[in-house]
Amino acid sequence: MESKPQLIVVKIGGNVIDNEQALQSFLVDFAALDGYKILVHGGGKIATNTAENLGITAIFHEGRRITDKPMLDVAIMTYAGLINKNITAKLQALQNNAMGFTGADGNLILSEKRKNSTIDFGFVGDVTAINAELINVLLLQDVIPVFSAITHDGNGQLLNTNADTIASTLAIACSAYFDVKLLYCFEKKGVLLDSKNDESVIKNITFETYQKLRDQKVIHSGMLPKLENCFDALSKGVSQIGIGSPEMLRIDNNIFTLVTP
Amino acid sequence: MESKPQLIVVKIGGNVIDNEQALQSFLVDFAALDGYKILVHGGGKIATNTAENLGITAIFHEGRRITDKPMLDVAIMTYAGLINKNITAKLQALQNNAMGFTGADGNLILSEKRKNSTIDFGFVGDVTAINAELINVLLLQDVIPVFSAITHDGNGQLLNTNADTIASTLAIACSAYFDVKLLYCFEKKGVLLDSKNDESVIKNITFETYQKLRDQKVIHSGMLPKLENCFDALSKGVSQIGIGSPEMLRIDNNIFTLVTP
Repeated sequence: MESKPQLIVVKIGGNVIDNEQALQSFLVDFAALDGYKILVHGGGKIATNTAENLGITAIFHEGRRITDKPMLDVAIMTYAGLINKNITAKLQALQNNAMGFTGADGNLILSEKRKNSTIDFGFVGDVTAINAELINVLLLQDVIPVFSAITHDGNGQLLNTNADTIASTLAIACSAYFDVKLLYCFEKKGVLLDSKNDESVIKNITFETYQKLRDQKVIHSGMLPKLENCFDALSKGVSQIGIGSPEMLRIDNNIFTLVTP
Repeated sequence: MESKPQLIVVKIGGNVIDNEQALQSFLVDFAALDGYKILVHGGGKIATNTAENLGITAIFHEGRRITDKPMLDVAIMTYAGLINKNITAKLQALQNNAMGFTGADGNLILSEKRKNSTIDFGFVGDVTAINAELINVLLLQDVIPVFSAITHDGNGQLLNTNADTIASTLAIACSAYFDVKLLYCFEKKGVLLDSKNDESVIKNITFETYQKLRDQKVIHSGMLPKLENCFDALSKGVSQIGIGSPEMLRIDNNIFTLVTP
């Protein structure tokens, strides 16, 4: 059997986006990665700040943000516009042939408006299909896709979508063509054994050790769905997943959590 | 000699962008065009309105707008974000595999910051190179590129750029691979013999007739540089250029100005 080429899918969140220096440092590391790669970025505070400056009030329902039409427009302007295009231009300056996308571009990520019997979350989409064939063509042209967390429903409607989910569904779909490694960069150095000790990084988690740590309540709250998503992706073709700080991209840094089946 | 396939490059301006119904009607006509095609869109009033709502004041120098940093950010948000992505999603709904771009994406349009000894126009770029090779690859994949009027300088800086110029330089560069037809859609039905009579469309203009009409001052002011650009594009490989209303795209409409060498 011929082995597939390696593809790295990297997801960065608001903590990197919001800090100009942290973003540039990350982009230098990302640009230095060899081989096929995809970047997925979250939003950060720019959307909230822009909405505030435009006099748009954030609407919440039981602590969850509702994406109404004015807020969707701000998300499109900031995520797909300002952030995505500036990252693309900065990667171009680092000799990476980046191309910025939403899911509407090339029909790369199709989604459907979230249905919920009790709450209307507004213009929020859940991914239903990835155009991995076209992404493969782009990657083989040495294009580096940069995705913002905006998708479309195929009927002309753009939808705000969870960036973590975009990263994992892209990674799963691309595993048809590539040996995929998925890296989640966040504000900690990895999954922690003790949430009060930033240095207590669990270096390896398998589904077996995950179940134990979950039962012992060492892993809890927000980390639970994140890891559930990881094991889902691993069961659907992704080879390995890293969770850690943006420095995880550096070869000399081996302090992060490696999640394997 | 093998004949090249036909490519249509269409440019629409603010008058179409600003009117939701006019935009949808145009997109239906554009989507119905057979064969290879590229769309270039201007900005319209959304940028000015957004800037106003954000409390950003437009700066002018001798009647010409200066693109300072806050105004550039608004241009990126609205042109490359809101307008470009909504057009892309709407074309997807019309079964056109549209992909929205700035010049930074795939290094498709490189520009340099405008130099001027007396005035600093700010973050305004003049096109220096088109990545026609990658555009050709995309077109052969049945991707329909949709360009906003934002380019990059290759050093990480995005720049506001004239949409008419983007359309003509794209048309010229793509003539290496295609037989290119360039269509400028604007608020009139074509170049007029009498500026007070909207029906006095000059159906055909060659360089010879242009020179006569210019000398007779029938063609004057804003139409002069527009037509000069047309003849420049025709001399550099573009086959024919149409100037007229958005209805020009319809097969049953032959009221527009056809510019040929």
